Parts: sequence; C-alpha cells; structure tokens
Amino acid sequence: MEVKRARNAGFCFGVRRALEITLKAREEKEGPLYTLGPLIHNPQVVEFLASKGVKLAESLEEITEGTVIIRSHGVDPAVIREAEARGLTVIDATCPYVRRAQELACELAKQGYQVVVVGDRDHPEVKGILGWAGPQAVVVGSAEEVAGLPEAPAYGVVAQTTQPINRLQEVVHALLPRAKEVRVYNTICSAVASRIESALELAREVEVMVVVGGRSSANTRHLVERLQLSGVPTYHVETAAELRPEWFMGVSRAGLTAGASTPDWIIEEVEKRMREIGEMSAAEQ
Amino acid sequence: MEVKRARNAGFCFGVRRALEITLKAREEKEGPLYTLGPLIHNPQVVEFLASKGVKLAESLEEITEGTVIIRSHGVDPAVIREAEARGLTVIDATCPYVRRAQELACELAKQGYQVVVVGDRDHPEVKGILGWAGPQAVVVGSAEEVAGLPEAPAYGVVAQTTQPINRLQEVVHALLPRAKEVRVYNTICSAVASRIESALELAREVEVMVVVGGRSSANTRHLVERLQLSGVPTYHVETAAELRPEWFMGVSRAGLTAGASTPDWIIEEVEKRMREIGEMSAAEQ
Ligand code: F3S
Ligand code: F3S
Repeated sequence: MEVKRARNAGFCFGVRRALEITLKAREEKEGPLYTLGPLIHNPQVVEFLASKGVKLAESLEEITEGTVIIRSHGVDPAVIREAEARGLTVIDATCPYVRRAQELACELAKQGYQVVVVGDRDHPEVKGILGWAGPQAVVVGSAEEVAGLPEAPAYGVVAQTTQPINRLQEVVHALLPRAKEVRVYNTICSAVASRIESALELAREVEVMVVVGGRSSANTRHLVERLQLSGVPTYHVETAAELRPEWFMGVSRAGLTAGASTPDWIIEEVEKRMREIGEMSAAEQ
Repeated sequence: MEVKRARNAGFCFGVRRALEITLKAREEKEGPLYTLGPLIHNPQVVEFLASKGVKLAESLEEITEGTVIIRSHGVDPAVIREAEARGLTVIDATCPYVRRAQELACELAKQGYQVVVVGDRDHPEVKGILGWAGPQAVVVGSAEEVAGLPEAPAYGVVAQTTQPINRLQEVVHALLPRAKEVRVYNTICSAVASRIESALELAREVEVMVVVGGRSSANTRHLVERLQLSGVPTYHVETAAELRPEWFMGVSRAGLTAGASTPDWIIEEVEKRMREIGEMSAAEQ
C-alpha cells in the first residue's frame, strides 16, 4: 500500500511559532511557566509540554508567580494587563495573523465603525478580538444573525482567522443593504483553506483518507467533514494506536493529512503505522 | 374601473431637482442655454424643454456661447473644466447622490484603493464617476468580470446609483477572496428600489398594471420587467395616446406607476385616460 501525505498538513505557522516560543521560554525562564489555556488543541502536545514542565492554567487566578504564555489565539488586552498587575512575566505568542485581526478591529472601532466580528462567539480568538474592538463590537456567526444587529451608517468587518470564506461573504452580503459603508478586512488565514484544498486534491488520488488531529480541534473536524463530503472514506484518529487494519483492506493507495494543531511527530507515527499495516496485509495475500 | 397609482412613482429627487434648476436657469440666464445630453431620458420632457428654448447639445463642441447645464447623471470633471475653458457658464445639476458616489470614488483612489465601480460602463453616470476616480479605476458589470480585474491588496467599491443591490452584493462576494481589504460604499439610491417595491405592492391588488416612461429609460424598462415577472399583465406606454381599451376589458382595478424619468403631467394624463376608458366600458355593459 502506498501512503501519500497531503502537501499542506499539520501545524500552521502560528501554532508552530507558539510551540517554539514556549519551548524557548522553558529553556530561558526561571520559575514556573504556564500556558493560559491549552497551547494547542491537541492532547498529545499538552502532555508533551507537561512532561517538559510547562503547566496549564485555565485562568490567571491559578497563577501566583512566574511566566505566562499567551497562545496563538490571542487574548483580550485586559488579560495581559491583569497578568502584569499580578506581577507575572507575560510572553505573548499570539499569531501575527490574529494580531492583525485584533489591531484592525481596534482601528475600525476608533474610526467610529460598528465593528462586526465574523466567527464563533465562544472561540477564544474571537473573545480576544472583541477585547481589542471595545464594548460596541458584536459577533456574527451567520448571515441570519445580521438582522439582529444594531443599525449603523458604517460597519467595519473582520473575521476569525479560521472562518470559511463563504461565511464572511454571506455576512457582508447581508450587511450591504443596511449601511452606507461596509469596510471589510479579510483576516481569514490561508492555512485552513490550504489544508482543505490539498487534502481534497490528495483525496482524488487515493481510496481512503486518514485525518490526524485532536477530537476537539474544530479545524481537524472540519477537514474530516469536507473529505467525507467529497465521497472518499475518511477516518479521524488522534494517534497511530487508533488505526484499524480493516480500513485498508484491499487498498493500494491511502492518503494522510492532519489538522493545523497536529504535531509532526504524531503525523509521522501515523504514517509509519499505516505503512506497517500495508506491508502486513500485502504479506497475508 | 378603479385606477390606483403606486405610492412611489415618477420623478426621483435628483431628476425633479435638475428640471427645476434648468427652468430657473431659463428664467434667469441671458443667451443660449443648453443641456449636455438630454436632461431626462424622456422624449416628452426633452420636447417641453425645447419649447421653452432650452437646447440639447450632444457634446461641448456644439456650444460656442451661453450656459450649459450638467444633468443629474453628472460628468467627468474634465468636461466641466473644458466648458469653462470655452468661456461657457456651467450650471451643475448633478444629483447630490451621484455627487456622493463621485466624491467617494475620488477619495478611495486618493487613499490608494483599486477603485471598482459596479455598473454599466456605457452609462453616462459611470463615465462621470470614472472621471473622478482617475485612470486606475475599473468598471465591473457583473461578478464574472471580477476574475479579470487587476490584483490589488485593497479594493474600494462604489456603485452606479441605479444598480440593483444584488449586483453590488455579488461583485463584493467575488472580490472578498482576492484582497486583504474590500471597502464598499453603498451608493445605490433608494429611488429605484422604492419605485419597484411600491409597484409590486400595488400589483398584488390589481388585475393589470400600466407603466409610464420613455422606451429608452432603463429604470422604466426594469420596472416593466419586474412587474411582468410578478405575473400581473403589464403594459408600457410613453403617453396616454398609447393606451388601448382592450387591455382593461372586464378589469375592475388597474394600477399605474412610472419610471423615475417620467414627469407628473404625463402620469396624470395617463391616469385620466385610464379612468375615461373605465367609464366607457362600464357604460357599454
Ligand atoms: S492565523 Fe495563525 S495560528 Fe495558524 S491558522 Fe493561521 S497561522
Ligand atoms: S441618484 Fe439621484 S438622480 Fe434620482 S435615482 Fe437617485 S435621486
């Protein structure tokens, strides 16, 4: 069985960078080191970091001293101020693309726009952007929600970096008849789309697809859905241990991809295990 | 037969204003008075103006002295400069809503946006806006044309005032994946939509609709099409003389509306003639 990996798979730029910043901080900083929330939505990475002595705090209240790392999603600036007020050292690993969305939201609010953040209101990235955009800003998860928005002469729109472009398009479509001006910053990051694109491309060449990633990783689950819609049998695993030989019975070409929060070492383990399964079944025949 | 007129019918604000400015100019200005192009897309209005001594020039070359009126559509600022250079008095009757589109296009270009004008490239209003937006600006008539646009980090969009909102929406939809920023000024005037809305509203209460307006008036023709699509029998006339009694045979309620370039006096003549036809056929029965 041939195993092919998608061109764009696994860690995006911002997640890789946040992990590097964290590992560097572990080497350089004395005292306790925390990430505020899991650094990456992947249980194996969280475990690995724990093994290195990087602790996980769900809120600042749990941290009394040391260093706190802001993950790639970013946070409300009030959180950074609070951490500093508590005497903590803050290392900001906010992805530069998320930072751009935060700054643009802030700028739009300053210029008097009614800021609209297209995204999932429960996502930490969106909460962070909202913090930058000030109290008037609103979150919109779909075009339908536009009807409930406050009237405004001018809307300023940014998007959660991992939103699908069609959601931004639909929201803007719904905003246009309501205002004299709609100023849209397309802050969507290409990482998610390029992972989907290259997965779908690969899916056309193989008989079965495996997606590696945390079960709670939204972008991994989305990747799985898109592949399933394309018609190719698709399996979602967190680790190599979950692979089942029967998925590959009679398969001569299998594809492999991974969500943006999946570390290379797990992808490699899965790939290795897939090759082993392939060899076993070849030997049996 | 009952005859009902649509709530919003006939002259829009900008056209009424241009006509008033012209008639006032005819009273106040000595010497020859021209409109540059027909003031209003309605042959009866053009005739009426001619009878008052307002001449029609298709280009500045035809005018050697006197006063020239810029109609509600507006013009390229180069045209005004040229008229002044020829020693003519210029009276600018550009509709304030069109002026707003011109100024916003100019402002966007100054700020470095790739200006996109959504509209019909052959329409005089669009040619005027382009003149304000400078040589880099482009016209887009449909979402399909977006694919051929120059790449740009930021698009600045304005629309011809009489475009349907869905065309603006579709173009913006197509622009969003191509740029980091899309700044849209919705310069669409409500006059056209409100005429369509109130015509469709009225159409639900009547058995036949009559639309009054010049055959070359785009907004009048569009009104006719929308009414025909709604399923009600619809007739387009330029004057009362074109009304045919057989259209109203057995009809107890007829509706009447008019394009934005149709003067009140023609609508009134048509309404009067419809009532006469109604009375005649009632007498016959
Ligand atoms: S915004 Fe940054 S965190 Fe990843 S998905 Fe894009 S590089
Ligand atoms: S732009 Fe002006 S000319 Fe009429 S259609 Fe709107 S009022």
